[in-house]
Amino acid sequence: MSDTAYPRGVEHRVAYRIYYEDTDALGVVYYANYLKFFERGRTESIEAAGRGIAEWNRHGYLFVVHSVQATFKRPAVLGDRIEVVTSFSVVSPYRGRFLQRVERDGEVLVEGTVDCVCLDDNQQLREFPPGVLG
Amino acid sequence: MSDTAYPRGVEHRVAYRIYYEDTDALGVVYYANYLKFFERGRTESIEAAGRGIAEWNRHGYLFVVHSVQATFKRPAVLGDRIEVVTSFSVVSPYRGRFLQRVERDGEVLVEGTVDCVCLDDNQQLREFPPGVLG
Amino acid sequence: MSDTAYPRGVEHRVAYRIYYEDTDALGVVYYANYLKFFERGRTESIEAAGRGIAEWNRHGYLFVVHSVQATFKRPAVLGDRIEVVTSFSVVSPYRGRFLQRVERDGEVLVEGTVDCVCLDDNQQLREFPPGVLG
Amino acid sequence: MSDTAYPRGVEHRVAYRIYYEDTDALGVVYYANYLKFFERGRTESIEAAGRGIAEWNRHGYLFVVHSVQATFKRPAVLGDRIEVVTSFSVVSPYRGRFLQRVERDGEVLVEGTVDCVCLDDNQQLREFPPGVLG
Repeated sequence: MSDTAYPRGVEHRVAYRIYYEDTDALGVVYYANYLKFFERGRTESIEAAGRGIAEWNRHGYLFVVHSVQATFKRPAVLGDRIEVVTSFSVVSPYRGRFLQRVERDGEVLVEGTVDCVCLDDNQQLREFPPGVLG
Repeated sequence: MSDTAYPRGVEHRVAYRIYYEDTDALGVVYYANYLKFFERGRTESIEAAGRGIAEWNRHGYLFVVHSVQATFKRPAVLGDRIEVVTSFSVVSPYRGRFLQRVERDGEVLVEGTVDCVCLDDNQQLREFPPGVLG
Repeated sequence: MSDTAYPRGVEHRVAYRIYYEDTDALGVVYYANYLKFFERGRTESIEAAGRGIAEWNRHGYLFVVHSVQATFKRPAVLGDRIEVVTSFSVVSPYRGRFLQRVERDGEVLVEGTVDCVCLDDNQQLREFPPGVLG
Repeated sequence: MSDTAYPRGVEHRVAYRIYYEDTDALGVVYYANYLKFFERGRTESIEAAGRGIAEWNRHGYLFVVHSVQATFKRPAVLGDRIEVVTSFSVVSPYRGRFLQRVERDGEVLVEGTVDCVCLDDNQQLREFPPGVLG
């Protein structure tokens, strides 16, 4: 990772509450559910740049996850208020990269990298549109 | 409920394992997840009658839940093997009714009634097709 | 249902966004997921009354769903902002009842009734504590 | 990755059906849900080695995901029958690694690596027990 490829410029933040639906029998948030929080963060960061996901879809741009890496450092539990922090960069015309983390009171619980591609209505690769994230 | 409307004739059974994804921080299956098991049971009972849900969809029949009632008697826990028991009747040309329960070793954990309607590709009500459930 | 049993007095409202995680291949919110929104609404309405769910749990009060009835009138879709509206009454010392609905721009999408019981740490029934909902 | 660290020796396979609950409004399986399938595969492969997850837990061994990497190659859709293929190796006394993939008719849809640690009842790291996976 180079500083060039990942301008720390803009980080988007959005807060969520942990509910029973997020937890499992170990008493903590189920690991796959952090990826739901990541996806919420990506969705809100895209909308904050001016156009919501549903509207992008209607214009023929589908953003699809190609790969994900996540490291689980500390668990969130029922009742926690967490923040999803998201930044984005286009690493090639056909590849966008989200750096994401889940924080609680400034402490990093989970961090990850999510690479996405952009498809058209026929599920074919297309270039990322300008302005997708400001 | 009359015996006429609910022929006990055929009950469909399908078994599932309880995984972490199904549980919550109280150590038991999360209440909304029993409705996923119900839906799995409906899906398999329809397919067992000859045509899978995806194929019905392609033929222009979408089965959509109108209402649900469920009573939670005993909890399932991690590692349990449960059975979903499903029977079906068409209570009017536009209304199908599934009687469903989740059992563990013959003991009823959850039981419910799920009323469905049938929509066409334009989301308009259509009559239930003959043969949807044998 | 009598007006006595259901004082319309206080309705609690909390808003959520619809994300991909909430939807299914029919393009709308998956039916079981509305019960997650109901549970979020109950959680927030209880916390708004002064004590969060996790804290009630630590004090030996577990609120567990006994039965649910829900009617699905209109679907929510990706990107929608919905509101969960919740009111509560204790219908007997051992039974609490939540009247809940999901609205979008004031239109009712789903409405339901959720009956809960209160358990102690040994999973035994106990009376609802005073003040659980204001 | 060396051949030493990853003996291809034993691959565990378990099959699942894709239901509405697994899909999203793009008409395919929601990306986070593949991690549920991965977890089902790990659970079944551990049980197949002689002791189920719940029993390991009761003996004071909690297997917790430390990190995950997954690449999404092709989507699964409603009605598909998929197989989860799992192999395991202990890469250090405190780190177990699952290589996993989701296949449909022998075609790889998703593949990933899941690193786990073993905790005791006090959430402290402990060594992986011998025999956890045969």
